[in-house]
Amino acid sequence: MTDAGYMSRALQLARRGLYSTSPNPRVGCVLVNNGTIVGEGWHQKAGEGHAEVNALRAAGDRARGATAYVTLEPCSHFGRTPPCAQGLIDAGITRVVGAIRDPNPLVAGRGYQMLRDAGIDVTEACLTDEAEAINVGFMQRMRTGLPYVRAKLAHSLDGRTAMASGESQWITGPQARRDVQRLRARSCVIITGVDSVLIDDPSMTVRPAETGIEQPSHLWRQPLRVVIDSRNRLPATAKLLQQAGDILVATLKEPEQPPQRPANSGALRYWQAPASNSGQVDLTALLRYLAEQGHNEVLVESGARLAGAFAAQQQLNELVLYCAPTLLGSDARPLLQLNFSQMQQQLRWQWQDVRMVGNDLRLTLTPEHNPTAAKEA
Amino acid sequence: MTDAGYMSRALQLARRGLYSTSPNPRVGCVLVNNGTIVGEGWHQKAGEGHAEVNALRAAGDRARGATAYVTLEPCSHFGRTPPCAQGLIDAGITRVVGAIRDPNPLVAGRGYQMLRDAGIDVTEACLTDEAEAINVGFMQRMRTGLPYVRAKLAHSLDGRTAMASGESQWITGPQARRDVQRLRARSCVIITGVDSVLIDDPSMTVRPAETGIEQPSHLWRQPLRVVIDSRNRLPATAKLLQQAGDILVATLKEPEQPPQRPANSGALRYWQAPASNSGQVDLTALLRYLAEQGHNEVLVESGARLAGAFAAQQQLNELVLYCAPTLLGSDARPLLQLNFSQMQQQLRWQWQDVRMVGNDLRLTLTPEHNPTAAKEA
Repeated sequence: MTDAGYMSRALQLARRGLYSTSPNPRVGCVLVNNGTIVGEGWHQKAGEGHAEVNALRAAGDRARGATAYVTLEPCSHFGRTPPCAQGLIDAGITRVVGAIRDPNPLVAGRGYQMLRDAGIDVTEACLTDEAEAINVGFMQRMRTGLPYVRAKLAHSLDGRTAMASGESQWITGPQARRDVQRLRARSCVIITGVDSVLIDDPSMTVRPAETGIEQPSHLWRQPLRVVIDSRNRLPATAKLLQQAGDILVATLKEPEQPPQRPANSGALRYWQAPASNSGQVDLTALLRYLAEQGHNEVLVESGARLAGAFAAQQQLNELVLYCAPTLLGSDARPLLQLNFSQMQQQLRWQWQDVRMVGNDLRLTLTPEHNPTAAKEA
Repeated sequence: MTDAGYMSRALQLARRGLYSTSPNPRVGCVLVNNGTIVGEGWHQKAGEGHAEVNALRAAGDRARGATAYVTLEPCSHFGRTPPCAQGLIDAGITRVVGAIRDPNPLVAGRGYQMLRDAGIDVTEACLTDEAEAINVGFMQRMRTGLPYVRAKLAHSLDGRTAMASGESQWITGPQARRDVQRLRARSCVIITGVDSVLIDDPSMTVRPAETGIEQPSHLWRQPLRVVIDSRNRLPATAKLLQQAGDILVATLKEPEQPPQRPANSGALRYWQAPASNSGQVDLTALLRYLAEQGHNEVLVESGARLAGAFAAQQQLNELVLYCAPTLLGSDARPLLQLNFSQMQQQLRWQWQDVRMVGNDLRLTLTPEHNPTAAKEA
């Protein structure tokens, strides 16, 4: 098998961590000795073993003289676990093939250097694009200090998300809603606006059974739910306050009497955001804050106004549109509130993926101006 | 080769007439003698030889004892040409395999009967669905007295066709516009509204070089252009009056002084339509009139109001949407003017085809309530 073949296997292993590793990246590792895979590992969860450690444990003595295929540069620093580069050296690995350099400034080439200094043959940049795509959020956070922001919208052929009254259940089918559960499950954060809470009263939780994802129960985690609520209109009766999982409210001024949550349902924190020019929560500041907290992938599930604000401020890295084969009419609600009057104001996107999800069409796009194209991970 | 294999070839031949046979159906014929194709033919143009005649001419004496594969039941009546069933009998054909019965009440099984009466072995219903799809307009006209109506719209991801000002050139790319040229070329009629003429001043012609279709120059024809103009606002300066090809104006009252067209540019006729309940040209009456004139496939290329009226009256058999990867914003023009207030009013469709055309996504849909699904011909 070629290097790319073994790396493909390592990427496959990395993808097993899609729903559990954050804030850490998804990483896979394959150890090959004399043409035989002698150990495999992937990172499952922050605080637990890195991919290399798990692969070395699986290989035992057979790691000596082996080649290690790693989807991300092995770490060189003491974090919650000792440096993986040292672990590979100690195990007698003689060659390392890596997919991407770790953009984490604590590593950034030092891992590869440590290996080379120990006399190990290092090949870099094997299947780089595929490895980037798996960790699109982690890479972006490390490089820009902002998370990767994905907006999900369900709409009709004529680009409408609900009737004027707000009536919208259901435009898309059960398979599309299950697909959205998977988008939530891979996200670190789900952002919504208080208007959506007041109109739709969503729970915004991950319901593992609905995702169709099979993973051990200890790996499941609820994304942080963020409600943008400039003027503290979040009602204490909101369903999302009752459902388990942490909640952050981004406000312009913390309320004197925040709503109470049921015991053991999770934390409710307020974050006082700077105001934008239009007197709303500054979205870029919020995203920067979320990145500082270690959040890689953010899912925006909101109405037209908030989704439009993210788009207008060019803070969307990806659009995921579920298009149902129906016409809701010209009085129904728009996809995104964007007040353009000239063609030159249009926001152009690039197709990344088009496929049927049940009876709905799923369109995935990235901004034309944004070089970080998302690929299917 | 199987019957289906030879019939596939006959369907391929039939498709060569996609842009030239109307008001006649597209028909192909293959003659097979002892496992060898001895003659092929297709109908090219009304008034010229039918597929069977052309295939018999190609086969000559080798037709004796052969099997004929025909995509439509051979005609049994004297039209502009003698009956093809008789021609097959005279040529000594011993077996006929047909795809569909001719729904034309002048034929309707009599062709097959004439063959059987002459001792010919007849197999019916080979690749029926595929053969129906090629002649979706002809079949519908014969069965219902209405043409097959296709609406083409170009829009953004958020379901908008133009800015509020009317600015719209170009939302979609050159490949999509070329594809529209092919939709026009296969249509018998192109319908637009006078509002579109006043705003966009389109020519609505087929420009053969732009279609990418290769066929002899004598087979090209311009679809009839129909302008719906209840109150005679069509200006004499309209570009479509200057471009060659016949024009029909559907009005509620014929004007005393109709606009003049340049010499040799084609006819300009007025048709006085009954008024609908809302005081507009009655669209169903117009379609019925067009079918009576022998028109099979109608393409609606209009603004949101007229396209919405066709949709609301369930007079659209097919939607062809070219979706450009752009957001035009919530002030831009809607896809279809449809004033619904409740989800139960929604118009549901069925996906028929989804594909990239250049950088735009083409969506083809048929109404959920309509059993006549259009397939790619």
